[in-house]
Amino acid sequence: MTDTAVLLIDCPDRTGLVARVAGLLYEHGANILHADQHQDHEEGLFFMRVEWAVGPADGRSGWAFDLEKFKAAFAPLARELNMRWQLTAGGERPRVALFCSQHLHCVADLLYRWRAGELVCEIPLVISNHRNVEDMVGFYGVEFAHVPVSAATRAEAEARQLKLLAQHRIDLVVLARYMQILSPQFVEQYPARIINVHHSFLPAFTGARPYHAAHARGVKLIGATSHYATEVLDDGPIIEQDVVRISHRDQVEDLVSKGRDLERVVLSRAVRWHLERRILCYGKKTVVFD
Amino acid sequence: MTDTAVLLIDCPDRTGLVARVAGLLYEHGANILHADQHQDHEEGLFFMRVEWAVGPADGRSGWAFDLEKFKAAFAPLARELNMRWQLTAGGERPRVALFCSQHLHCVADLLYRWRAGELVCEIPLVISNHRNVEDMVGFYGVEFAHVPVSAATRAEAEARQLKLLAQHRIDLVVLARYMQILSPQFVEQYPARIINVHHSFLPAFTGARPYHAAHARGVKLIGATSHYATEVLDDGPIIEQDVVRISHRDQVEDLVSKGRDLERVVLSRAVRWHLERRILCYGKKTVVFD
Amino acid sequence: MTDTAVLLIDCPDRTGLVARVAGLLYEHGANILHADQHQDHEEGLFFMRVEWAVGPADGRSGWAFDLEKFKAAFAPLARELNMRWQLTAGGERPRVALFCSQHLHCVADLLYRWRAGELVCEIPLVISNHRNVEDMVGFYGVEFAHVPVSAATRAEAEARQLKLLAQHRIDLVVLARYMQILSPQFVEQYPARIINVHHSFLPAFTGARPYHAAHARGVKLIGATSHYATEVLDDGPIIEQDVVRISHRDQVEDLVSKGRDLERVVLSRAVRWHLERRILCYGKKTVVFD
Amino acid sequence: MTDTAVLLIDCPDRTGLVARVAGLLYEHGANILHADQHQDHEEGLFFMRVEWAVGPADGRSGWAFDLEKFKAAFAPLARELNMRWQLTAGGERPRVALFCSQHLHCVADLLYRWRAGELVCEIPLVISNHRNVEDMVGFYGVEFAHVPVSAATRAEAEARQLKLLAQHRIDLVVLARYMQILSPQFVEQYPARIINVHHSFLPAFTGARPYHAAHARGVKLIGATSHYATEVLDDGPIIEQDVVRISHRDQVEDLVSKGRDLERVVLSRAVRWHLERRILCYGKKTVVFD
Repeated sequence: MTDTAVLLIDCPDRTGLVARVAGLLYEHGANILHADQHQDHEEGLFFMRVEWAVGPADGRSGWAFDLEKFKAAFAPLARELNMRWQLTAGGERPRVALFCSQHLHCVADLLYRWRAGELVCEIPLVISNHRNVEDMVGFYGVEFAHVPVSAATRAEAEARQLKLLAQHRIDLVVLARYMQILSPQFVEQYPARIINVHHSFLPAFTGARPYHAAHARGVKLIGATSHYATEVLDDGPIIEQDVVRISHRDQVEDLVSKGRDLERVVLSRAVRWHLERRILCYGKKTVVFD
Repeated sequence: MTDTAVLLIDCPDRTGLVARVAGLLYEHGANILHADQHQDHEEGLFFMRVEWAVGPADGRSGWAFDLEKFKAAFAPLARELNMRWQLTAGGERPRVALFCSQHLHCVADLLYRWRAGELVCEIPLVISNHRNVEDMVGFYGVEFAHVPVSAATRAEAEARQLKLLAQHRIDLVVLARYMQILSPQFVEQYPARIINVHHSFLPAFTGARPYHAAHARGVKLIGATSHYATEVLDDGPIIEQDVVRISHRDQVEDLVSKGRDLERVVLSRAVRWHLERRILCYGKKTVVFD
Repeated sequence: MTDTAVLLIDCPDRTGLVARVAGLLYEHGANILHADQHQDHEEGLFFMRVEWAVGPADGRSGWAFDLEKFKAAFAPLARELNMRWQLTAGGERPRVALFCSQHLHCVADLLYRWRAGELVCEIPLVISNHRNVEDMVGFYGVEFAHVPVSAATRAEAEARQLKLLAQHRIDLVVLARYMQILSPQFVEQYPARIINVHHSFLPAFTGARPYHAAHARGVKLIGATSHYATEVLDDGPIIEQDVVRISHRDQVEDLVSKGRDLERVVLSRAVRWHLERRILCYGKKTVVFD
Repeated sequence: MTDTAVLLIDCPDRTGLVARVAGLLYEHGANILHADQHQDHEEGLFFMRVEWAVGPADGRSGWAFDLEKFKAAFAPLARELNMRWQLTAGGERPRVALFCSQHLHCVADLLYRWRAGELVCEIPLVISNHRNVEDMVGFYGVEFAHVPVSAATRAEAEARQLKLLAQHRIDLVVLARYMQILSPQFVEQYPARIINVHHSFLPAFTGARPYHAAHARGVKLIGATSHYATEVLDDGPIIEQDVVRISHRDQVEDLVSKGRDLERVVLSRAVRWHLERRILCYGKKTVVFD
């Protein structure tokens, strides 16, 4: 096992971008494990993800890729080519907070995956406006914060939530069926760092009670969508979607039941991809490198 | 091979419905091949489909179920229980007209399936506002009518179309990517007898250019929907839907290309199910017995 | 909410079966909620599932369907028509034991669903040949039995397992990625009452290391299968299957990771359908009423 | 619209491959439209596909990428790095022959797609051991050759088929539900240039009558597989697979009917990807760049 570094780039498209980035990595002796790029010809944009080995995972053995030296050489190139970029070394584990309400299937799923090593991160904090998740959070050894929310106390509750996030140095907020709407002021503190799951195939059935709406409309498939939260409800860049077939035999409660399995899968994929730095956001869209 | 009869029923729900219908069929000696029923508990409605053998398909051999006698006995029961019902014998082949415009993948698919015996019906007529389908229609030995449509001539064109439908005694109209909007006056002539395919996962992306809209929104799956046309555009009871995965690599033309395969499948299933009398409409929904 | 009764029937096919069963239920005043039947024309078999209300779930209010009286009337009919049948009242909660080994994703999923009320049963017992599940089992308040297995001690271990199952009056055994092979002697104690999940799309890739085999063969989809265990490994009647798309980018560990989500869903559906008495087994097949 | 060139490479993996190929293209002024690469870490192999603009599609305007000059510079690099490579300019249209037997759904689908411009190739020849496709082939303006096959005349028939392929300078043979087995001698004439569709989810149900076998086994999903033909039946590198859900209600004829739609889609995708030079074969596997 080796530790790896991931470089994510987006910039205006022009010829020679791959050659220059790959050339620089080659000069520095990078052993590239995965490389992927994408061009949006309409928008004239270029996206790239490169992952390479930086040293043995145990940190003890001799060899190591000199990340600082590479950074020093890459920065002027990035400036010249007008790149936005993130360079992260695999040893860094992002710090994640989970928000939930009464329905616990998503939060239970994420906690289990985290403990099983499927999600490479720290989860130091779970926040809920209900108490029914408390014992499960305790079982996983995570700190629980009960933050009740009402129309009257929303601003105060968000202030408390933001303080908790700051105290725990949270990098990513996951809304695991958190049924309260976050204010634009909250959302803009974590741009492209709040992942939500909506229980419909967006853009159909935004807002409240999407399974009821789907049942009323008589659709033959129901869906779930994970996306980055933005100021506009259910409107952020979509990360992942999936659907399952239903029939006239399915009542609303059957939709809810079938939908739970979709929500778990669609949300956990989004969180994993974010943690593996596979996602680039632009405008209302995502590039998800697989 | 035997010919079969199909009885489709919907009525207010009450106890004993299955017992009474099944009992009557039993008394008349029906050999039931398939029976399916459904209750909508919210609306208090009952739906049933029964299919039974009525005689050998060649019509020569001796035995035959006495359909007229059964009908005479069933009618009073149906009145008593407030049933809407249709009884059709398998030998009857519905007469279908196809409408299309420039994109021919759906009409080509339906004509091929019809000739191959996958669709048990007659197709005496294809109507298009373009001429590019003409040679293919000729190859299949079907009459072609070129009915151009413009904003100024819409009413006149529809009058001509309706006349053609009447002349050919059409039972079912299939809009196989017909890109003109039919007037409410046209639609109400064929209630639950016009099947349309819309190239999105309804209710998302109604109206024009749904693939462009899907691309702009950045969805991760695209869909297609077949439904009965009603006076409100893209709002009729949904018969079938399906989706296919896309990624950031797919441009609008890739969505169009992937979508074509969905449209073919979703429309042809709807037509087949309609011809096999598997579909019951109520309100904005369908029951599709499989 | 009402309690319900479920009647499952299979018998040789003949005319009038639906009429006679539905007629008898009608005479006894049954309010049928769901009824479904199926004929296997090749084998000449008939299958039926009927569910009806037997009284309010709280048990306090006045009305109740007289189940014993119905049973007494139904038994002679069943004998006459050569039926195998099961009649269960919804209040009965089957007792389920989970078996697992090192991989805990399926057992964690089932325990969570059980606590959340998605699986209507008792789970008094979890058996594993490893200890890593112990704390989770404890969290859910279930008894844990550690039964190590080796080639030398297999017979002894199975004897101990069977004793535990008997002590806990277990109705259904769920092999939640239990990696030991059960002997035919064990399996025949629980005919159609042991549900296993195999991590391939059966009948492809039976036996050990199916993800490695799938990777070596270069398939483009991987699957998972839940089935009733029989004496022949991976050969029992299939209950449910599902697949997910993979590509050349996926290494064996990616297949394992994607497969876990399939296994969870495919196994939990099978368990739920079994508990809801939706499954009838015959020969190597199942009828699953939805 | 521009014409494009596609370079496909596979070679032993080593550092700097992307840098050197991208660098050379950059030096020659290539405007890269798509680039994708893949490493098989287990086998130590590297795969790459690059597509770039070589000039306006009409061929009239001034600018053009100098393909010959690039080739001259690339050849020594390829030798040094031990690359297998193909460089094709988009203007070249591969010449495709279709083989079929009695079931025409795949051949009808491919002919339609070809005429509609979905498949960028020439189709000068259709060969069948039956005559029922003849009028359709005539409609599309393609030459038809009737080559009957029996056990006694197989060698002779194959000689005639090979002669026809040579006469028409065929690049790719598509077995569109051709129900005769080709000899190893035939297959080795067209390595990785014969695409077959098998009506099962390989490796399950190889050989004859896979839908019957699937029905007998009681699977809950059926599949179809497109693959390159090799000397061993149904064993070649898989290009694409897809599945559809079935239930106990589906008889063998329903499987056949549902399977037809799978076969069409799975085969046409494989042919399109081959024509777009998206596929690299190695061992028993394919890399399919999307």
